[in-house]
Amino acid sequence: MKTILYKSEPVRGEHWQKLLADLAPEYRFVQWNSLDFSDGDPEIFAEVDYLVAWVPPENIAQRMPQLKVLFSVGAGVDQFDLTQLPASLPVVRMVEPGLTQGMVEYVTLAALALHRDLPLYLQQQKQSLWKSHPVVSANKRRIGVLGLGELGQATLNMLKNFGFECHGWSRSGNTPEGVTGWAGVEQLPAFLSHCDIMVCLLPLTPQTRGMLNGELFARLPRGAALIQTGRGQQLVAEDLLAALDSGHLRAAVLDVTDPEPLPLEDALWSHPGVWITPHIASQTQPETAVTALLANLQRYEQGQPMQGEIDKTKGY
Amino acid sequence: MKTILYKSEPVRGEHWQKLLADLAPEYRFVQWNSLDFSDGDPEIFAEVDYLVAWVPPENIAQRMPQLKVLFSVGAGVDQFDLTQLPASLPVVRMVEPGLTQGMVEYVTLAALALHRDLPLYLQQQKQSLWKSHPVVSANKRRIGVLGLGELGQATLNMLKNFGFECHGWSRSGNTPEGVTGWAGVEQLPAFLSHCDIMVCLLPLTPQTRGMLNGELFARLPRGAALIQTGRGQQLVAEDLLAALDSGHLRAAVLDVTDPEPLPLEDALWSHPGVWITPHIASQTQPETAVTALLANLQRYEQGQPMQGEIDKTKGY
Repeated sequence: MKTILYKSEPVRGEHWQKLLADLAPEYRFVQWNSLDFSDGDPEIFAEVDYLVAWVPPENIAQRMPQLKVLFSVGAGVDQFDLTQLPASLPVVRMVEPGLTQGMVEYVTLAALALHRDLPLYLQQQKQSLWKSHPVVSANKRRIGVLGLGELGQATLNMLKNFGFECHGWSRSGNTPEGVTGWAGVEQLPAFLSHCDIMVCLLPLTPQTRGMLNGELFARLPRGAALIQTGRGQQLVAEDLLAALDSGHLRAAVLDVTDPEPLPLEDALWSHPGVWITPHIASQTQPETAVTALLANLQRYEQGQPMQGEIDKTKGY
Repeated sequence: MKTILYKSEPVRGEHWQKLLADLAPEYRFVQWNSLDFSDGDPEIFAEVDYLVAWVPPENIAQRMPQLKVLFSVGAGVDQFDLTQLPASLPVVRMVEPGLTQGMVEYVTLAALALHRDLPLYLQQQKQSLWKSHPVVSANKRRIGVLGLGELGQATLNMLKNFGFECHGWSRSGNTPEGVTGWAGVEQLPAFLSHCDIMVCLLPLTPQTRGMLNGELFARLPRGAALIQTGRGQQLVAEDLLAALDSGHLRAAVLDVTDPEPLPLEDALWSHPGVWITPHIASQTQPETAVTALLANLQRYEQGQPMQGEIDKTKGY
């Protein structure tokens, strides 16, 4: 019997436990918060085959000598210190339809809200002001997505249904049909100049840390808006506030911040051009996540490549 | 040469004039606000063939003896007093892709905002509160649309893309594929019990005036939300406020009110459960509207039925 150790949010963990008991009783599922550390590491550490974690414990290779795969419960692996993990340990991010669906919903909601001036109308409501503003037709509204992985591609495929002019940028260029693709650092300025609404769906890597800064914002058209659904550390918040205050950017919708939770006194909370949601765009859904995990375990045990296995040299 | 008299918003009228001059110079286009009424009706009234209007002038049949068709610039004709119009005068509402696209965008935006608790998160932002709430999967969220004309059908076809459980109600039953259809007064209660989010896209008629009232709200599931994109006079505002205050309804997004503009002192403006936009969901777009008008003029002049011609006995 193989052992799965789960170290993440415990209420959702109970959900995982029930689903696994139904679907794959051949696995033993152990929740981190049920373990007793009073005498050091519990004995079960010696038997852990698979670790499913948000933030893994330190020295996992030494403490769990049988460990075969490390699975992230989230779409990213930036919470892992990849340099501290054994080179031979496969690391897998979560690819599951519930995560993708949540992101598609959130980005579409944010894009439509910015497209149809909802932030402005909600400001007007506070003043009991009944005043309409010109509508821009969707085919004249350019939306650009930074990052063309699973989430970026699914998001662009939904945005296309509304008739928006869609652009996508990635390091390697991997563009869905009907989307204008841009690739690599040299095409980034041209991509940015086509974004009335820019969506960040990039993973956090040394290259993307601090990437959403004043220099990047200056390359966006005047009056552009930002949707930040990547990782908080990609955004230089003071540069965003400056771009909003100068009028170069008109609004920003942020689902991720640095740090999280965003401190009470942070200026982002009260800026009239900023909407903040508490990292809820996309959450792993236990039903679909357990199915995705089991499919990957089957692949691994049959010696096949797993879906979402990361390249440690790229960090995603 | 046939004469078109335009009586609506003059800035958009100039746009219509330019488009018609390009596309169909064989028509004379006259704007109402360019006429001189100092000696009574201007002479051109005797030559008007087609009237394109938001609110038409009184006694149009007597004052414009050549008038052949009355076109509404909007999707509805409820601003016309149909009893005052000659029975033989065709009345045509606007059916054009720009109007439909605007409504699809607006209802999708409102539905996603309610589905993903955006009103609650924006309330939390005012308190600098970082707190997430459980996500309901789209396939467990039931959205029902009242009214299955052009706009209702297009809206449901978009909502289906997100995986929502979709329901539609109409007088006669005319349900798009993949939507559970309900028809007639006798199935209205059953339809309502399936609406976690209810969208009103009905025309204003004697039957729908005051229809969104306490009795109807009581048949919605507890915690349901309303999107009102029909006509202001369909909603009994005090019943909505009571349903929100009791917690039976959780939120409402209103694009239409009674009267419009909504008076400064109206309680709807400041209710925390209500979002108000100033009748901007769907606006006739001159480019596509002029094309639709010309297609209907061609149909009329060739003795064919026009798109959007209303049945005066039904009022839509």
